[in-house]
Amino acid sequence: MKIYGDTNSGNCLKVKWVCDRLGLPYTWMPVDIIKQESRTPQFLKLNSAGQVPVADFEDGRTLAQSNAIIRYLARASDLIPSDAFAAAKMDEWLFWEQFSHEPYIANCRFQIVYLGRPASDLDPEKVKRGYAALARMEHELAARRFFVGDALTLADIALLAYTRVAHEGGFRLDGYASVRRWIGEAEKSLRLPASR
Amino acid sequence: MKIYGDTNSGNCLKVKWVCDRLGLPYTWMPVDIIKQESRTPQFLKLNSAGQVPVADFEDGRTLAQSNAIIRYLARASDLIPSDAFAAAKMDEWLFWEQFSHEPYIANCRFQIVYLGRPASDLDPEKVKRGYAALARMEHELAARRFFVGDALTLADIALLAYTRVAHEGGFRLDGYASVRRWIGEAEKSLRLPASR
Repeated sequence: MKIYGDTNSGNCLKVKWVCDRLGLPYTWMPVDIIKQESRTPQFLKLNSAGQVPVADFEDGRTLAQSNAIIRYLARASDLIPSDAFAAAKMDEWLFWEQFSHEPYIANCRFQIVYLGRPASDLDPEKVKRGYAALARMEHELAARRFFVGDALTLADIALLAYTRVAHEGGFRLDGYASVRRWIGEAEKSLRLPASR
Repeated sequence: MKIYGDTNSGNCLKVKWVCDRLGLPYTWMPVDIIKQESRTPQFLKLNSAGQVPVADFEDGRTLAQSNAIIRYLARASDLIPSDAFAAAKMDEWLFWEQFSHEPYIANCRFQIVYLGRPASDLDPEKVKRGYAALARMEHELAARRFFVGDALTLADIALLAYTRVAHEGGFRLDGYASVRRWIGEAEKSLRLPASR
């Protein structure tokens, strides 16, 4: 399997982390999105949405959307709860992450890290919604070790991707003790270097 | 099961359509989001994200995020392909719908239908991205009957919700013949009245 991605992108790192965790072999194919490499005619054949990451399998089939890719790769693993309702709660978090977290926290980070803009130029509405996402995570993580019960699932992997680098988008995690505790536990579980 | 939702919201209608299609009994609990009824302390106990729809089961468990709910309700039905890779492609569309379609097409419609603003006040960037989503759908549907193969899946249900009412958000579908053909087929399959 080839993974087309950018190691600076949390969405792409989710796929890398799942492969590393499950021992799935892959070849990383670097794509520079700032250089519009995800918009070339060749890349659009892999994913007509023009987005990374893309998983390109040996038989020529391709799969896009980070959370769909990790859900497929981890389908027979303990990263997806065996109980159907618990798996549905995991899915709830995966969709929430893409709808209510990524567009704000990852987007602010993108402005700063990729485009080199100052934090003072960030859209205040996006910053506000990013903090609202962090506040909801704090509320939920005060009551549970991980997002779905006591074990790491894809919900944690998906939410970790941009939360652990939220400070690069100008977000301060000082008031979010449960989120910081969870970041540490999730990073340890994935054998990632501690980010804080 | 109770479904908390607003029948003017495509995200909520997805859940209704899946229940109706599969013959699942439910009680519809109307929530008026304009009146902030999804932000009351009582509602936030159902879903701390403060969003509809929410499925509230007999045993007191709740599930949010439209695409997570329909994926759970339809888990043993033909609305999810039995082949793992085909199901993953369905998931790819479900995530794309929430990330690259809903925030533009549904948001523009929200401004007009819920907030009563004129189409001329719409954010041009959102309109542009809405048309980009329609263009991608047209490209894909020119080659296939439905989004994943020849049969209706949750991918079609999720994408139908706001595409069939895109005109209410100011989007013209004149140049999107395959999208119009697919809307008709999907509506017929779900026994919905023809929207066009």
